[in-house]
Amino acid sequence: MPSNQASASALRAQFRSGVASGHTSGLAPNLVQGNLVVLPAEYAQDFLIFCQRNPKPCPVLGVSAAGETQFPQLGEGIDIRHDLAKYRVWKHGEVVEEPTDIAHVWRDDLVSFVIGCSFSFESALIDAQIPLRHVAQGRNVAMFKTSIQTIPSGPFQGPMVVSMRPLRAADAIRAIQITSRFPAVHGAPVHIGDPSLIGIEDLSRPDYGDAVEVMGDELPVFWACGVTPQAVVQAARIPFSITHAPGAMLITDLSNQTLASF
Amino acid sequence: MPSNQASASALRAQFRSGVASGHTSGLAPNLVQGNLVVLPAEYAQDFLIFCQRNPKPCPVLGVSAAGETQFPQLGEGIDIRHDLAKYRVWKHGEVVEEPTDIAHVWRDDLVSFVIGCSFSFESALIDAQIPLRHVAQGRNVAMFKTSIQTIPSGPFQGPMVVSMRPLRAADAIRAIQITSRFPAVHGAPVHIGDPSLIGIEDLSRPDYGDAVEVMGDELPVFWACGVTPQAVVQAARIPFSITHAPGAMLITDLSNQTLASF
Repeated sequence: MPSNQASASALRAQFRSGVASGHTSGLAPNLVQGNLVVLPAEYAQDFLIFCQRNPKPCPVLGVSAAGETQFPQLGEGIDIRHDLAKYRVWKHGEVVEEPTDIAHVWRDDLVSFVIGCSFSFESALIDAQIPLRHVAQGRNVAMFKTSIQTIPSGPFQGPMVVSMRPLRAADAIRAIQITSRFPAVHGAPVHIGDPSLIGIEDLSRPDYGDAVEVMGDELPVFWACGVTPQAVVQAARIPFSITHAPGAMLITDLSNQTLASF
Repeated sequence: MPSNQASASALRAQFRSGVASGHTSGLAPNLVQGNLVVLPAEYAQDFLIFCQRNPKPCPVLGVSAAGETQFPQLGEGIDIRHDLAKYRVWKHGEVVEEPTDIAHVWRDDLVSFVIGCSFSFESALIDAQIPLRHVAQGRNVAMFKTSIQTIPSGPFQGPMVVSMRPLRAADAIRAIQITSRFPAVHGAPVHIGDPSLIGIEDLSRPDYGDAVEVMGDELPVFWACGVTPQAVVQAARIPFSITHAPGAMLITDLSNQTLASF
């Protein structure tokens, strides 16, 4: 079995060379994957404060200095310009390009944020034999805008986005225990039960991802979602930014268990 | 401020001398209180196995040897025959006496079990500013027989009894985190949400304790309850046993925080 570092480096090399692209869900399931947000330095301070004020949807795993492309704490030899499978380039809140490399749009004033992702806690839930319907059905998780407002910072503000997983009560209780151990990847749920209490009108119509059925003996359980910072950056309509493309995360050298708080 | 040991000894001395009797709820709220079950030695082994098999409703804080009346691990100078406010003496499943002292019925073959009590985790919930309606209203907690069966041992068997506290979702999630730290006093909830899934027909008609309203934005949250072992002993209709009277617990020298697992 290859080391974490070897596995992660090999996957990043495939993305860097263009041999592979697309979703990273299920790849190297024991390794931490991260959301990427890249902003010009003039917006970075406000965004970092936004993340500090909203740690559940925006748990920061790493921040670069302006122009820096390495993340030595997250993985050996990472180059943030090449090592993701697919990126989105945004101008004034609109996607203008979905490249597999961002060297051609790189600038020396860009600051990169790597933000925790629910793949890490899903791995812990699966290890604990908690059934996740969207995984069993090969779908993306269902995500919803809520009436829970984030705490603004500069131009960054907007509703919290949550992911929803239907669970039986005993599994929901166990899932709360397990995800509480992972504050760096969204931590414990933000809501459980009646969706209307957080402004969700219809569970069968998610704002992002795929719908998943909730059975009569299940509770919908809602976690803060890493789509929140992307939605907030989009809504701020700043002149230029880059993110990962949906589902195409940065694969780090860290095992998910390194993020467990106890 | 007196030490734990001084506070606990003073309270036990009041009960021992007969100066005080009645409920111990709210007395020395930082100290662990325990349920008492006293059985003839011939039943003790089966009961201890019952507790081992059903640790959530029956978390054993201490067991005596036959005839022993001290619990040095739980408190200096405890004499289990005198130090509770009120006892119940049972014969063949019926209460025959509610004395404030059991020296007159003591036997050298009696084994005493001290079992954890939800007062300990309620103290932790209150410290975390989670509102508990029954406490605010000065009522006993609502308790229900469920369709969850305990795992039998010898003559001991029957349904799990649970206590119910109505909480808003965010408080319910926080309460699951907090009570998970206290496995020695029932630990995390056993159920959350729809009462009918655990065989409870009507939340307004508890089997023990007082009814408490569940508001529209709240979930009922159910914890395994220390009434379970008492109900099981009663149902076994053994010739002789002693328990504490409802709400009249053994006050120990231990602070609740000594039971926190992390």
